[in-house]
Amino acid sequence: MSLKTISAVNSMSYEDFISTFGNVIEQCSLCAAAVWGDRPFSDVNSLHKSFCQFADQLSIGGKEGILRLLPDLAGRLAMSGGLSKESTKEQQSAGLNTLTEQEKQNMHHLNQQYKQKFGFPFVICARENKKEAILTGLENRLKNSGETEAVTGVEEVKKICRLRLLDIVDSSSKL
Amino acid sequence: MSLKTISAVNSMSYEDFISTFGNVIEQCSLCAAAVWGDRPFSDVNSLHKSFCQFADQLSIGGKEGILRLLPDLAGRLAMSGGLSKESTKEQQSAGLNTLTEQEKQNMHHLNQQYKQKFGFPFVICARENKKEAILTGLENRLKNSGETEAVTGVEEVKKICRLRLLDIVDSSSKL
Repeated sequence: MSLKTISAVNSMSYEDFISTFGNVIEQCSLCAAAVWGDRPFSDVNSLHKSFCQFADQLSIGGKEGILRLLPDLAGRLAMSGGLSKESTKEQQSAGLNTLTEQEKQNMHHLNQQYKQKFGFPFVICARENKKEAILTGLENRLKNSGETEAVTGVEEVKKICRLRLLDIVDSSSKL
Repeated sequence: MSLKTISAVNSMSYEDFISTFGNVIEQCSLCAAAVWGDRPFSDVNSLHKSFCQFADQLSIGGKEGILRLLPDLAGRLAMSGGLSKESTKEQQSAGLNTLTEQEKQNMHHLNQQYKQKFGFPFVICARENKKEAILTGLENRLKNSGETEAVTGVEEVKKICRLRLLDIVDSSSKL
């Protein structure tokens, strides 16, 4: 699939925009619907900035909501093949589909503890981390406060969003 | 379908909560995902208040996003049977499925003007208005500023949300 120019993005109908960018923040069509109002974008960075601004402006409860829309890493959905195509690729790139039985149990146990403590799943940009770094990150971040984790999790969502945008839009394309 | 008690709502898993309340604000799963963090709810009013707080806290761009997720009144989706079941029932209750040819054209023309001016569709609580009031409302609200309309539209979304919640939760049920 060839990458889109920023001009092509700017001339999309609302419906095309939502179907193209509705999942760059996982399951969160409201983000794309809000961002559509910021056209025209000068390049992929300005498009990403709009998504970031939307996420940053949310209350802590809203940020927690964004995190709840994401799947557990190496969780039930991943095991059953029920992840979005973007998440599947990302979790595979981190090696989460090649966990040993021991690593799987460890990940599951830490994910449960994390969700129990914070009320939302542990989120990390899987394409920028390997499985060992993810397990260590999980253990370390479990020690944080809920508010720190809501903000940290959303920072990871913004990285995931950037990489997903770069899969769609030509980064050399400018207005 | 029998109404749920507030205790039943409070004891729902996150997945059940999203599948039950994910469309009380149309197409906006982020709203329900954010609100889930406010449990326990003391009654349907406190549940509604949480949805309202989420919508109120959004920036103007976020409010516009919520409005863009709603369908046009008597628009293309309604004609083709593509509305959500909630929207179908609401538009019918206002008599929007019994518009004369002249009323249809009038509505279509005003909807287009509105969307052209504001960048989001005209939203009104159809269950609290009949078709004549909706047409008059459309003509009058076309004169407002974009910011006024984003706020006014979201006030209507909150009324729609309340009626949808009352279709699901027993209003006499208290914690």
